[in-house]
Parts: sequence; C-alpha cells; structure tokens
Amino acid sequence: MSSRYEIRLSGSGGQGLILLGIILGETASIYENKNAVQSQSYGPEARGGMSKSDVIISDEEIDYPKAYNVDFLLALTQQSFDRYTREVKKGGIVLYDSTLVHSPREGDYRLIGLPLNDTAIKDIGKSMVINIVSLGAIVKISNIVTIENTEKALLKRVPKGTEELNKKAFYAGVNLAK
Amino acid sequence: MSSRYEIRLSGSGGQGLILLGIILGETASIYENKNAVQSQSYGPEARGGMSKSDVIISDEEIDYPKAYNVDFLLALTQQSFDRYTREVKKGGIVLYDSTLVHSPREGDYRLIGLPLNDTAIKDIGKSMVINIVSLGAIVKISNIVTIENTEKALLKRVPKGTEELNKKAFYAGVNLAK
Repeated sequence: MSSRYEIRLSGSGGQGLILLGIILGETASIYENKNAVQSQSYGPEARGGMSKSDVIISDEEIDYPKAYNVDFLLALTQQSFDRYTREVKKGGIVLYDSTLVHSPREGDYRLIGLPLNDTAIKDIGKSMVINIVSLGAIVKISNIVTIENTEKALLKRVPKGTEELNKKAFYAGVNLAK
Repeated sequence: MSSRYEIRLSGSGGQGLILLGIILGETASIYENKNAVQSQSYGPEARGGMSKSDVIISDEEIDYPKAYNVDFLLALTQQSFDRYTREVKKGGIVLYDSTLVHSPREGDYRLIGLPLNDTAIKDIGKSMVINIVSLGAIVKISNIVTIENTEKALLKRVPKGTEELNKKAFYAGVNLAK
C-alpha cells in the first residue's frame, strides 16, 4: 500500500493557500522525516482569481509531483468546490467552508462543512487568518502530521510579532474540527 | 520547438527562494498570460538546510511539473552549486553568488557570477533581500518576463510598508546584471 497522501487547497487569491501548503510541507518534511512536494500551477483559472495549492506527502520518494487522486480537498469557495471535488478519490475527504460554499454537492467522499471564515472573523478578528484556521482543521481531521509539529512549523513561518495571533487561529481550527 | 523554460532557485533555507519562485510564477501567469508551475520538494536535503524552488514557464499547458532540464539555475551557496549544476541543460545559464560560491566549476553552461549578497547588504542594508536582488538579475539576464511586469507582481506580493525597500533591491539586481 502506498503512503502517498495528496492534499489540495483551493479557494480564491488572497486566502493564503500557498502559505498553508508550505507549512504543511515543511511540517511533514522537516519535523516528521517524510518527503513532501508543494506546488502551485497557474493557468487561465489563476487569472480569473482562483487559487490552488497542492501538497503531496509520502514516506517514499515522490516521483510524480502532481496531485491526481486527491485524498483531502479543502474548498473555500463554491467555484473551487465545483471545480475540484471531481478529482477527489473515492472515500476521500472534502472539507468546505459552510458559509462560503452554498451548495456542497454530495459524492463518493466524506463531506465536512465548518465555519472556517466565520471563525477567523469572530474569534480572531481577521478573515485573512482563514488559512491558519483551516490548517488546524485539516491537521485535526486528517492526522497526516501531528498538531505539535504543525505548531512548530507554523511559528517558524509566520512574520515576527504575529505568532500569538496565528497560534490562536490554528487552535481555533483544531477545536472546530473536534 | 518547445516554449518550456525551467528555472531552479537553490541555496539555503532563509534566503527566501520560495517567495522568489512565487513572484516569477505570478509574473508569468497573471501578467503575461503564460502557464506556470512553481514547486518545492522537501526531502533529506531540506532537513540539512538546503532549499530549492522550481519555476516552469510555458506558453502551453505544463504536463510534467518537475524540472528535469534546467534552463536557468540560481545557486546561492557552494553546496547548491555543486548539487544542481549537473541538472542544467547544455547551453543553459548558471547565475551564482560570487562571494558565497567559492569554487564555481565550469561546464557546458554559461557561468555568471554576481555579488548578490553583498549588494543586498551594502546597497539595501539587509542580506534578507538577496532573493529580490536575485529576482532583478534573473529577469534582466533571462528576459523570460519583463522588468515592468515583475515589478507589478513583486509589489503585490511583499508585505505592506516594504514596497520601496523591495523595489530598490529589485532594481539593484537589474543594474547588477546589465
């Protein structure tokens, strides 16, 4: 059985999905001794304002760095939900924002709706930390890396002076997913 | 003839190579209507402190997102120079930091040494902008995207309040490569 795990983070530009992917990749590789590839591909969709960031985590070397059989999809807009759920594998997980995605279509995947954006706004006071709230929820739900190691990678990546804010956002996401 | 152009940015963690890759990818895709893939793969080398960021730019859709025939290598440490020059294609370009890389081995590529780090320290006062100085040099040397469009993408990506500093670093790199 392959240990390959594919995570796709999708939404709109400005939601910080690249940073979210980088933190997941660094957690897996630097703190958990796994291999990881993090990538963004930009095509016509990027010019339309969509954003997508992929992370592949594996115990083995990663030969093919593109996601094609997604284990875990984060969808922060309706457009990204509609576009990417079709690439989720049977039995995979789809985590969506329950306010920003109005029509979460069911399929051969496990659907989880959480108020990620509302939590960023109400609990933290900044909708721009939706990516870090999402990070907490993804790690809690997927168990692909530990919460402790993710916190380490997170604190190393965020700008100085924003550590406490980001830590609070991260654990708000963890608690939301409990 | 393929329009595919592969750029590899290599050095050590903390030199900001991921951000450099993201800005190049966004310049090509959002401002120049091309396709781009930007990726970092993390393996044992990442745990050893090496850092690598790849950008592939193409007029066509990018099927294979991994660099395998590098057109342009940036090497900001001796270790990364030694490791990655072997993946540069015949006739490709190797831009290295002339202070940080002590033994630039010659090969079937065009070698260009520039004091990128010294410029970041002396002209800008911050070695952490070595990535943005390098961005200016890469764009000037490769012509893969325009200087004007890169400036737009750069200013959209850097933290508020640091625009002037980064613009200065960028043009210091452009001038260095003239």
